[in-house]
Amino acid sequence: MAREIRTVAVVGAGVIGAGWAARCLHRGIDVVVTDVSADAERGLREVVSNAEPALNQLSLAPRKEKGTLSFTTSLAEAVSKADFVQENAPEREDLKRNLLAEISKHAAPDVIIASSSSGLLPTIIQADCTHPERVLIGHPFNPVYLLPLVEVLGGEKTGPQFIEDAMAFYSSIGMKPLKVRKEIEGYISDRLQEALWREALHMVADGVATTDEIDQAVIYGPGLRWAFMGTCLTFHLAGGEQGMRHMLEQFGPALELPWTKLKAPELTDQLIDRMVEGTQQQADGYSIRDLEQLRDNCLVSIMQSLRSFNYASGNVLKEDDERQYEQTSGSTEWADGDDLSRPLDLHGDKVHPEWVDYNNHMTESRYLQVFGDASDALFRYVGVNAEYHANGNSYYTVETHINNILEVAAHEPLRVTTQLLGLDDKRLHFYHRMYNSKDNSLLATAEQMVLHVDMKAGKACPAKPEILNVLGKILDAHKKLPAPERLSRQMMVPPPK
Amino acid sequence: MAREIRTVAVVGAGVIGAGWAARCLHRGIDVVVTDVSADAERGLREVVSNAEPALNQLSLAPRKEKGTLSFTTSLAEAVSKADFVQENAPEREDLKRNLLAEISKHAAPDVIIASSSSGLLPTIIQADCTHPERVLIGHPFNPVYLLPLVEVLGGEKTGPQFIEDAMAFYSSIGMKPLKVRKEIEGYISDRLQEALWREALHMVADGVATTDEIDQAVIYGPGLRWAFMGTCLTFHLAGGEQGMRHMLEQFGPALELPWTKLKAPELTDQLIDRMVEGTQQQADGYSIRDLEQLRDNCLVSIMQSLRSFNYASGNVLKEDDERQYEQTSGSTEWADGDDLSRPLDLHGDKVHPEWVDYNNHMTESRYLQVFGDASDALFRYVGVNAEYHANGNSYYTVETHINNILEVAAHEPLRVTTQLLGLDDKRLHFYHRMYNSKDNSLLATAEQMVLHVDMKAGKACPAKPEILNVLGKILDAHKKLPAPERLSRQMMVPPPK
Repeated sequence: MAREIRTVAVVGAGVIGAGWAARCLHRGIDVVVTDVSADAERGLREVVSNAEPALNQLSLAPRKEKGTLSFTTSLAEAVSKADFVQENAPEREDLKRNLLAEISKHAAPDVIIASSSSGLLPTIIQADCTHPERVLIGHPFNPVYLLPLVEVLGGEKTGPQFIEDAMAFYSSIGMKPLKVRKEIEGYISDRLQEALWREALHMVADGVATTDEIDQAVIYGPGLRWAFMGTCLTFHLAGGEQGMRHMLEQFGPALELPWTKLKAPELTDQLIDRMVEGTQQQADGYSIRDLEQLRDNCLVSIMQSLRSFNYASGNVLKEDDERQYEQTSGSTEWADGDDLSRPLDLHGDKVHPEWVDYNNHMTESRYLQVFGDASDALFRYVGVNAEYHANGNSYYTVETHINNILEVAAHEPLRVTTQLLGLDDKRLHFYHRMYNSKDNSLLATAEQMVLHVDMKAGKACPAKPEILNVLGKILDAHKKLPAPERLSRQMMVPPPK
Repeated sequence: MAREIRTVAVVGAGVIGAGWAARCLHRGIDVVVTDVSADAERGLREVVSNAEPALNQLSLAPRKEKGTLSFTTSLAEAVSKADFVQENAPEREDLKRNLLAEISKHAAPDVIIASSSSGLLPTIIQADCTHPERVLIGHPFNPVYLLPLVEVLGGEKTGPQFIEDAMAFYSSIGMKPLKVRKEIEGYISDRLQEALWREALHMVADGVATTDEIDQAVIYGPGLRWAFMGTCLTFHLAGGEQGMRHMLEQFGPALELPWTKLKAPELTDQLIDRMVEGTQQQADGYSIRDLEQLRDNCLVSIMQSLRSFNYASGNVLKEDDERQYEQTSGSTEWADGDDLSRPLDLHGDKVHPEWVDYNNHMTESRYLQVFGDASDALFRYVGVNAEYHANGNSYYTVETHINNILEVAAHEPLRVTTQLLGLDDKRLHFYHRMYNSKDNSLLATAEQMVLHVDMKAGKACPAKPEILNVLGKILDAHKKLPAPERLSRQMMVPPPK
């Protein structure tokens, strides 16, 4: 039965130690930090308090009360209180080996002692410990309070149950433990990171590229994929419909080219089979096309996230959008001979598969999205286009009344008509009807009021005369149409009879 | 004066060629694709049509009419029409060298011929071309239609103006061109990717890890950072307050350890200075603390994006959240002592970056999404939960009236309160108010009518008595509250005075 973990001792208060403290405290675990330098406490508290906003934003799930943070320069004091020890000393074998031995003297015998080492062998650094069976590696990534990965492995003397218990603990604080099955320097993640890092150092040393160019070569390209798809599955997709096997055929010869200073292993049949079988398993029954769609959705979402910070690829997207808005010079789509004797018929779409819920019904917010697209079509039609927006003016929705009439399923073809109801120099009132464009059944209606605004000033202002002119003509014609049947409906549960 | 690019010839219709076609078409450029295999056309059209949803989602900026796609097995025909040629043949030096020579015979002399090569030297593959000054490398990343990076470099015979023109063209189609200043095999990005890939192959060959474990070691840790911060700036932050210099002091010794099969360069004073100065320049005056905050914001946003796809680190976050909700189960459900003297306060969220438009305002359909989530919170609160749905019953929205009061920006914290207005055995009428949870300003309101349905039969039916009982208690209490000020508002443009 694993010990309940209420107090964690964090040994070493640098970036990694402080990150562990922040994560544990946020999870309601008490943390006692120890460092040889009393001055370390200031930096520790700074990291812990800087981590709070991100941790609070990350998840809205209910949390326990935060844990209590304390600091001591006495290793013995910190460790003897703890239910779990996480050591974060500099990456020197002799130093870690001695420190772990010292920790093991003061920690209760069933207390796990995990080292945050980035690549030292656990067999060596546990060698002088008492009860070495509870000494293991728990290697996290900066910032520890946000990144889920922690590599877990033991040395020759580590007991398998302690590995399992450590992994369970890490999971319980929101992490993704990865068991490293073979004891090897650098473990798995840092072997990859270190290969990349050393190649980068070579390029800087050889004058090939600056650190900035090297970072650009990652963040605008492969790095965007690495956020959710590793190098193996990514290359499975690079192989086209035949996946990894085709990729290895096509890029196998490049393994012999000097494309990095790292010599590749021989591409034996056995290695090919392992790569192909491994990525097949990862694909988990999904076709290449399915995985491509998932990848694209993730990429779009990540780039849109980064756009909101105007950073990295998000900055490229933002600047590109701005150029598009500038370039699209507008003209009114409306023409004098257009038939205005019926509601306008300006917008068609099809229910996208991602718009439906688990019952295959379009979710309510998507109805409004389609109506919003129909409003945009109306605006473009009358001349409120990108150029008009670029001049600082737009129509903003201030009120919307939707009636949902029929359920709508994925892939259903949609058509929206628009009837104008009212207009002054600032206000525009209209009524959308959404139909299935195949059987013409009425699916939903939306009555909307929009307001013409000066976007910079953030307040209403009169629309340009040429816009009002076109809208006026349409309204004059639409006044002859019957009033929509659901106009200004009042919601009410009738009193019981 | 650079040639205006209306038609691009794409030579080779594999994953990369088709990706170029999709990007150019979406940008209003005509594309003629050529491939020796006539069968390639099917795969090409599949990729192009699969790319559409992602491209449409990525940006709402106005676009020109889509370009026209055509296919021919005649290289001469394709290339002679083109204003720009992008070659995407397999990565074999002799093949590319001959193909580029053939292309150069048919392309007009001022037409840029760019090769998508991943690492071959331009000097070699341009050697047999006519007008070799317009032959260069434009190396993209899969999927080409989404990832912005393209590495651009020329060979000994390439004219500098053609490099500039190619970069300008790539920028104009939404890409981020990175000029590779020194001609080197693998360029910059693929040297890094290839180092990582070869290290991965070594680990699989040595039986250290599976492809899945290798990918996990990236996507749950370092890969999340690489989406927006390269290895150099990341390690600048790993050094704590003193940045890169401290990091090199601390991890310098590890460069001599066998943490990858790639031997590191000697850490000379010159190399240290270049790394420190380079990352200082990248930091661009921002303190380590500023950069940490930016990094944390990006990480949170990316993980939240991935949560919506339940993929990679998003899956860890989702499962962890679910555990938190389970552990605190009951606390969000209605209990007899709950304060019903005010509107219920059951739903909080934050404006996700992908919810805002180009002006950084939340789009109108997202308001309804948040209100829908608040309705779900109400339903869970009164017992209409997953178990209730599993029994075939649910509440469906039939009518919604939204008032938009203030603009809402990305990352704004939201809170929604809910006031019950009416109830019978089938109908439920309520009123949501959305606030900025920081300053308590009222952002929007939504009056809604929902109907209790038998989901299989697809028609209204009475709710279960225990649900009606709880709703009735809340309604009794809420009847004492003042009626919402915007209840049953009528939209109307007042007649002119």
